[in-house]
Amino acid sequence: MIKKLSELIELEISKQNLPVNLPGLYDPIAYTLNLGGKRIRPLLTLLSAQIFYPDASIAIKQALGIEIFHNFTLVHDDIMDNAPLRRGIKSVFKKWNVNTAILSGDVMFALATENISLCEPLILPQVLKTFLQASIKVCEGQQMDMEFEYINQVHLRQYLEMIELKTAYLIAGGLKIGAIMGGASPDNATKMFTYGLKIGTAFQLKDDYLDAFGDPEKFGKQVGGDILAGKKTYLYLKCVDKANEEDRKRLNEIYDAKKNREKKHIIEVKKLFSLYQIDIELKEEMLKLIQSSKEVLQKVDGDEETKKELINLTDRLTHREN
Amino acid sequence: MIKKLSELIELEISKQNLPVNLPGLYDPIAYTLNLGGKRIRPLLTLLSAQIFYPDASIAIKQALGIEIFHNFTLVHDDIMDNAPLRRGIKSVFKKWNVNTAILSGDVMFALATENISLCEPLILPQVLKTFLQASIKVCEGQQMDMEFEYINQVHLRQYLEMIELKTAYLIAGGLKIGAIMGGASPDNATKMFTYGLKIGTAFQLKDDYLDAFGDPEKFGKQVGGDILAGKKTYLYLKCVDKANEEDRKRLNEIYDAKKNREKKHIIEVKKLFSLYQIDIELKEEMLKLIQSSKEVLQKVDGDEETKKELINLTDRLTHREN
Repeated sequence: MIKKLSELIELEISKQNLPVNLPGLYDPIAYTLNLGGKRIRPLLTLLSAQIFYPDASIAIKQALGIEIFHNFTLVHDDIMDNAPLRRGIKSVFKKWNVNTAILSGDVMFALATENISLCEPLILPQVLKTFLQASIKVCEGQQMDMEFEYINQVHLRQYLEMIELKTAYLIAGGLKIGAIMGGASPDNATKMFTYGLKIGTAFQLKDDYLDAFGDPEKFGKQVGGDILAGKKTYLYLKCVDKANEEDRKRLNEIYDAKKNREKKHIIEVKKLFSLYQIDIELKEEMLKLIQSSKEVLQKVDGDEETKKELINLTDRLTHREN
Repeated sequence: MIKKLSELIELEISKQNLPVNLPGLYDPIAYTLNLGGKRIRPLLTLLSAQIFYPDASIAIKQALGIEIFHNFTLVHDDIMDNAPLRRGIKSVFKKWNVNTAILSGDVMFALATENISLCEPLILPQVLKTFLQASIKVCEGQQMDMEFEYINQVHLRQYLEMIELKTAYLIAGGLKIGAIMGGASPDNATKMFTYGLKIGTAFQLKDDYLDAFGDPEKFGKQVGGDILAGKKTYLYLKCVDKANEEDRKRLNEIYDAKKNREKKHIIEVKKLFSLYQIDIELKEEMLKLIQSSKEVLQKVDGDEETKKELINLTDRLTHREN
């Protein structure tokens, strides 16, 4: 089922007929959409629709819209984070320039909204509201993320709020939109949203984990990138909470040193994470979220087989190695 | 009538309850919306609604959405054009930074779409489609505008296409949305759109004129800014068309000199514009558009008094001195 839906998504993306008269504006959009990626978000949207309606393709335009929006945030975030690479190749602002990345991104936001809106007028207000609110939350999350870089004391709950906004809201919004497209009751649609917030947060925790403890051969990115960047992720914040004074001091020394972090610091920091069993705590936190998400999904009235597929996918994503 | 509608717009803008928890994201939005400006676009949207419905406030949320979108484009354009000032004070990316301007702009686009969408479900698809298509056209226009800087031979018709996209489409879209909100027939709504394309293009030609020939005491900006920037406006392109070989060569010498233009060049270029009566040609072109717009408006079935107000406003804007 997952394979078929993934093919449906790739087909829909390949069918995008972008205008050819302005390559300076549209080539970066095609480039971004064709970079690949796991296409998790549109897949979740389709699965959510199929819980309530036998044919998931009823939500294909919305799934596409969610994916285009996600890619739009990557294009703009890469400028803000000064990230030269995206999925191993040049990010848009590096391959072209900042102006191109801004403007092509803006068009992607409009194209995303256009696709999201391709539904029956009666459900359009609800679909659109869900999408626009999620899109604002994503921006708020990015803002918090950027501000954390300059704040000395970030609390763990602030971090969890940030990843909920930046990552989980779009996943939750996509699941709710899929549900609405499938004809779910408002109550079931809300449950799918709640489910999405939980799994979205869990996925980001898994990202944090892999960044430090991933297998270099399987991870695909440099292991320890977050530590090198001094990024205050779950691992760091929890470790600051749990460490004794001496270790906390050392940890903060390393994280406060602007750009003087090297590979040896990755090893040192990971030792501290392990010493205080932060990796284990993270996994527990993640599995708690997944467990709680399953309890929410259980209460959703819909196709049990598709619900099982959704749970399997979620489990695979929390056990992934890249 | 205009005064009352303008007050309605200012009231609606002042009522915006932006979240207070993320000043780094929302302060730049409040700053931008409170910079003032003529609020022409929302005014036109309201007048268009009132042609078909006695109470213009039926379209106030859409008028607000159009104004927020317009302000969003200013925030992003100022980054792209490296413009330090906006309405005499610091532009967002100068007062804060590029990242803030990108992200706050993105939120403004979402807020604009939210406001545009506050209408009856039955007309929402049409309203939203009109808005999103206009928003894409505006980006395409900005792209063309940026590309013109690096193209040696821009044709006058390309320039007219660019200003139609960058300026006229949003005005036209706002007028059409106002008409739909007022209950106009599809035919009348389309006519309001056509009307908007014509007056929007005329307004931009007037901007081009004022930039070179405005009265320094009334214009509010530096006269000759476009010439100093080497911007290929209507005046320059038409002059290149009409000038003899010697004058054309001189004109291109001045415009090709990257950043070596001074005030004396403004005087020299303006002399050439006057010599070839480009100022007069521009005014004729503008008045032709306005005349043609009036003929379109005449065929619209709606309140004659409001139509007259709209024509008066358009005439005032084409005779304005700032």
